[in-house]
Amino acid sequence: MAADFNDPGVIDPTEAAMLVDQYELTMADSYLRRGMNDEAAFELFVRNLPPNREWLLAAGLGPTLRLIEDLRFDRRALDYLASLDRFGDELVDYLAGFRFSGDIDAIPEGTICYAGEPLLRVTAPRVEAQILETLLLNQIGFQTLVATKAARVVLAAGDGAPGAGGNVVDFSPRRDHGADAAVKVARSAALAGCGGTSNMLAAMLYGLRPVGTMAHSYVLSFADEEAAFRAFVEDHPRPTILLVDTYDTLDGVRNAIAVSEAEGVRLAGIRLDSGDLDALSRGARELLDAAGLRDAQIAASGDLEEDHICRLVAAGAPIDLWGVGTELGTSRDAPALGVVYKLVADRSGERWRRVGKRSEAKATIGGRKQVWRRYRDREMAGDVIARLDEDVEGEPLLVPAVRGGERVLDESLEQVRERSRIQLGALPSRLRSFPAPDDVEPYPVELSPELAAAPGAGV
Amino acid sequence: MAADFNDPGVIDPTEAAMLVDQYELTMADSYLRRGMNDEAAFELFVRNLPPNREWLLAAGLGPTLRLIEDLRFDRRALDYLASLDRFGDELVDYLAGFRFSGDIDAIPEGTICYAGEPLLRVTAPRVEAQILETLLLNQIGFQTLVATKAARVVLAAGDGAPGAGGNVVDFSPRRDHGADAAVKVARSAALAGCGGTSNMLAAMLYGLRPVGTMAHSYVLSFADEEAAFRAFVEDHPRPTILLVDTYDTLDGVRNAIAVSEAEGVRLAGIRLDSGDLDALSRGARELLDAAGLRDAQIAASGDLEEDHICRLVAAGAPIDLWGVGTELGTSRDAPALGVVYKLVADRSGERWRRVGKRSEAKATIGGRKQVWRRYRDREMAGDVIARLDEDVEGEPLLVPAVRGGERVLDESLEQVRERSRIQLGALPSRLRSFPAPDDVEPYPVELSPELAAAPGAGV
Repeated sequence: MAADFNDPGVIDPTEAAMLVDQYELTMADSYLRRGMNDEAAFELFVRNLPPNREWLLAAGLGPTLRLIEDLRFDRRALDYLASLDRFGDELVDYLAGFRFSGDIDAIPEGTICYAGEPLLRVTAPRVEAQILETLLLNQIGFQTLVATKAARVVLAAGDGAPGAGGNVVDFSPRRDHGADAAVKVARSAALAGCGGTSNMLAAMLYGLRPVGTMAHSYVLSFADEEAAFRAFVEDHPRPTILLVDTYDTLDGVRNAIAVSEAEGVRLAGIRLDSGDLDALSRGARELLDAAGLRDAQIAASGDLEEDHICRLVAAGAPIDLWGVGTELGTSRDAPALGVVYKLVADRSGERWRRVGKRSEAKATIGGRKQVWRRYRDREMAGDVIARLDEDVEGEPLLVPAVRGGERVLDESLEQVRERSRIQLGALPSRLRSFPAPDDVEPYPVELSPELAAAPGAGV
Repeated sequence: MAADFNDPGVIDPTEAAMLVDQYELTMADSYLRRGMNDEAAFELFVRNLPPNREWLLAAGLGPTLRLIEDLRFDRRALDYLASLDRFGDELVDYLAGFRFSGDIDAIPEGTICYAGEPLLRVTAPRVEAQILETLLLNQIGFQTLVATKAARVVLAAGDGAPGAGGNVVDFSPRRDHGADAAVKVARSAALAGCGGTSNMLAAMLYGLRPVGTMAHSYVLSFADEEAAFRAFVEDHPRPTILLVDTYDTLDGVRNAIAVSEAEGVRLAGIRLDSGDLDALSRGARELLDAAGLRDAQIAASGDLEEDHICRLVAAGAPIDLWGVGTELGTSRDAPALGVVYKLVADRSGERWRRVGKRSEAKATIGGRKQVWRRYRDREMAGDVIARLDEDVEGEPLLVPAVRGGERVLDESLEQVRERSRIQLGALPSRLRSFPAPDDVEPYPVELSPELAAAPGAGV
């Protein structure tokens, strides 16, 4: 089977069907009994940006659309639901024949987006739209969170130059929240501009570059470090990266150089995984240069994130490759995104009715929406959230993704990665430094005059 | 298929086999070429507790052991690895016949544990032990993280009384990091003492109590709140919980009471999802009591975590049920656990050699270990980490889990939940208040005299 950038990974469509909160089924039960299954529109959006985030990078759409297209309740699920004595036969029969038949419009992966902007709109018979809630929030929310973190790291490692991020690789699988997270983190990191992953499952599924050579346990398995390096280069005659910090780091660099010379194998580079990365990278660079190994790269890893990388880059630390794990895979400084999925309109017969919510802290503006983005000199200048039928200047962000249950959007890694590159390059420069100053001027996102006057707006 | 508390969930054993960092395979390649496949011992432990944590609750072992027992590299994986032109044929042939044949000793799920203590030890041919690294760290680390968070919430909601946690339910699937996380969060929460989950997939797989009735979108789908409540109780004649905060919360309570009286259906309770939960729960309680509905429960949800719950409980807010989502499922205040998996011993022939690492920040004490726990008046009094062959006073925490590749430990939800209840009850009371005082005396974990004298100790 060939790699496929939109492979759903470890979750299959019958599992996805049951990744539903019970309330979606109790509500569906009631809607079906009452014949309330006319079209409704739900929008997925982020209420507020999390701490330490000034923008988001949309991700997760591709694999999620695949799951939705094939979503099925299997016999085990149907028997289980019937056994609960909580739902009517009508619901169970309905789920037995469930196929998503509606439309989805979405902001494509790799697009910068902001709080309040619908990332996705589902327009479908009410029950179909309702049943997708948990799956969409779980998959799109999490992947957008991680792609955003990855994009920040990529920008930091490129010294702010967009798209230079092939020098960041994903080392996170051991700290990711489970197996689905591990493959989706690698995918999200790749679309944001990372250059590889240590995760073999993700590399196979998505066609990513697999990276990684040795752990400390390898070095410890031999009599001494030099013996370990010699064994490794003998067994892997392609240029390789040696891990030098098991004992004394700079002695490790000397051993790597000596083994490379003695064995006649070109040293691709060395990796530092602990200690003062600034000082050690300078020391390692000197030793490598003195040995004539100017092409040998210095890789760094160990609790790295964008602020630390920015400081090292600004200090001029000669680090060529960044292995980023825990901080990337868990988005540690902002591990949750306040994504919600809200009913915004429904209809009986031909007429759409806008549906909003006026409660104090959690208002929702009713009506189906589009987001329009203006650019000035290739820099993002401001977004307007408007009603679907309003005509606004700029580029509309939501595009058709599913029509009548069938995918009409299916993008490749290359397409999404190129979009990310352009989008990150179009971010105002004040939003590309880490950490952002406390008083950084936020990106302007406005409501159209019609929306601003709507109930729930501005709360 | 019946529910099974140790079901691996959405990940299957062929996916688990490839959830490996590339370096494990490059190292395995080298070990095989060199005939270095004698027995080795690796231990999994947490280097340091994360911020805001004074202890951990072990979790994740059951489903992980199932995966290990059935771990297989399938044709697709083997073809992929061969296609990379990076590994020798010997490795690919070896992986084609891979079966885990070794031993695993582990601290059982639901046991309180601390930094530095091995949660698990794998003793197996070096290559087998090495290949499990990423899977073990990804699954055990994450589930231990979440079970710990859940246990904190359970203790908070029970006013510190251990095991009263049936009043906490998992509402997290929409914010969890992917589908594997969602089912494992529900499982980890249940073993820590939570009383149910909104996640239907997890409820089906693990035999948990599914919970949830309605979202705001249901109420918004009707002409007004009273019409929505009437429809819901008509369609769900069992006592139900109505969500009352779509418009004005206390008016919502009045509507719930009126509908329950008019329809002659007992109101199980009401749910508050926004606003000042202390004031609103008191207002709701008064209205319910005045209507003679003293049995109707008050459920609260919305960004709840242990500190907030402790404050509400201390203030006397009359809340009976707690729906906890984002904070539980992402362990938001500590979303990563510094779990590592380190070679600690290997042997050639009959003799074991201890393997440790002396690097500055990341030392590892060599040798296979056991943890011994002493109790005083049923309260945990202190742990000692010792060499495997030392005789220490107390109860040993690691027990046989796998022998010769076959599971010898397979516990039920009831067993693990009961252990958690007892363990949480045995925690010193100073470690059961949230937030912990800054100067809280940590739980005493000592090294045995023999270990304390070992290289790498005390660093």
